[in-house]
Amino acid sequence: MHTDPHPFDAAIRLVQEDEHRYRGATTAAYANMVGPYGGITCAVMLQAVLAHPQRQDDPIALTVNFAAPIADGAFDVEARPARTNRSTQHWAVQLSQQDAIAATATVALATRRETWSAPEAVPPPEMPPASTLQRTSLPGVPAWVRAYDLRFVEGGMPTAFDGREQPHSRTEVWVRDEPPRPLDFPSLAALSDSFFPRIFLRRRSFALVGTVSLTTYFHADAAMLRAQSDRHVLGAARALNFRNGFFDQSAEIWSDDGRLLAASHQIVYFRE
Amino acid sequence: MHTDPHPFDAAIRLVQEDEHRYRGATTAAYANMVGPYGGITCAVMLQAVLAHPQRQDDPIALTVNFAAPIADGAFDVEARPARTNRSTQHWAVQLSQQDAIAATATVALATRRETWSAPEAVPPPEMPPASTLQRTSLPGVPAWVRAYDLRFVEGGMPTAFDGREQPHSRTEVWVRDEPPRPLDFPSLAALSDSFFPRIFLRRRSFALVGTVSLTTYFHADAAMLRAQSDRHVLGAARALNFRNGFFDQSAEIWSDDGRLLAASHQIVYFRE
Repeated sequence: MHTDPHPFDAAIRLVQEDEHRYRGATTAAYANMVGPYGGITCAVMLQAVLAHPQRQDDPIALTVNFAAPIADGAFDVEARPARTNRSTQHWAVQLSQQDAIAATATVALATRRETWSAPEAVPPPEMPPASTLQRTSLPGVPAWVRAYDLRFVEGGMPTAFDGREQPHSRTEVWVRDEPPRPLDFPSLAALSDSFFPRIFLRRRSFALVGTVSLTTYFHADAAMLRAQSDRHVLGAARALNFRNGFFDQSAEIWSDDGRLLAASHQIVYFRE
Repeated sequence: MHTDPHPFDAAIRLVQEDEHRYRGATTAAYANMVGPYGGITCAVMLQAVLAHPQRQDDPIALTVNFAAPIADGAFDVEARPARTNRSTQHWAVQLSQQDAIAATATVALATRRETWSAPEAVPPPEMPPASTLQRTSLPGVPAWVRAYDLRFVEGGMPTAFDGREQPHSRTEVWVRDEPPRPLDFPSLAALSDSFFPRIFLRRRSFALVGTVSLTTYFHADAAMLRAQSDRHVLGAARALNFRNGFFDQSAEIWSDDGRLLAASHQIVYFRE
């Protein structure tokens, strides 16, 4: 029996061309308004490191810089180890099209050992379970949004851009891949960018937006991701500041038993 | 009359060797327990971009990955433009010693235009002015700590590592360069790493620590930095999570009139 791969796996599929070079292509399932969804680009650049024969252990930090629009179609990803230590490994990654760099990334991999551990931040309190909420239907949105099952508790996509400025831009949302897929590092990296632009929520008016730089820290190890499997995770996002063409966003991704899986930060360009 | 440069300017001084390559050296004023203070490394790597003839406008994002310990002495910094657009420019930077990469960085520069702007986060409330507080004296700390005038309101360096675990690791502190120096992008980048390791505050026991990756978003433009000049800025830092050898830190740097200058995030390795 032949089973088609999950659309996420199809989207991050890379073919190795030489030692440090891979070939991939955008897919319709993760299309954004122009070019691919930023989260899938994060996942692809991380995947180039994870698929590399020299890879050592699991990701602890990923930074992706969106240097130029990515066109629909084929792209090259180059992943080079910059430094390998006993318990950490640093990578430099570039995504290019027609030999022009469209995105740069750095990835840190790390070996984890059991130590004293303690949470400090806590997940949003009194969240209704995902199973008690309806999947949000968002007609007219780009394809990638339909690649997620989103169940908003607070701060969903505004139903109208009526220009009524809101006091804050916080979102709390249950989210998983659609169709369901067990969580792994690439899908967690992608999920970290699945929040709508904070300016849409805060300002309730349309703006052209584009993430300039995004950083995700992985607090989960592979065992925590396996335990989470394909159930909804809880996302919480907010902005600190909007100023003269740029705003930031900080987000946390929590497991459904309240453990921090990832923290993600980005700075976003906007034009009115 | 000859005036010695400020120790900060001496520490980030780079001599251009060829188009994309600079030579610098660590200085005693910013020494850490082993090698240089991480914040000065951030400043040096940013400075390589800002000093480059192809530099376009001011920084919006800086990520530095601390790939290996930096030895006291000379180092090379290579700064290459990865992509230049109309209003953003992306750079890849490497710091090496003996041809081995010790740190990698990415820098995004951006042109800012006046737009709708709004703060969302607010500075810590009811902070006593810096002038009403004493400079904290910290005997026995590494040299770089004395390169700052630190006035803690909450969460200073524990006076004893007595192992009494604390409920949180929050810090609120007034900080400026010592001797005073007008704030600019490199010094703001350095300041963003001037918080003591959160694990020292939370756990009150010693651990070996090392930042793996640090990202700073610049909300201030050059005019805001000029307006702040050499007065104390307000730093606020906290951790989200400590787990199996890594913890994170998020920090904000506020002007003394309550405007967000920078937000900075890092993930830190620790060993008990």
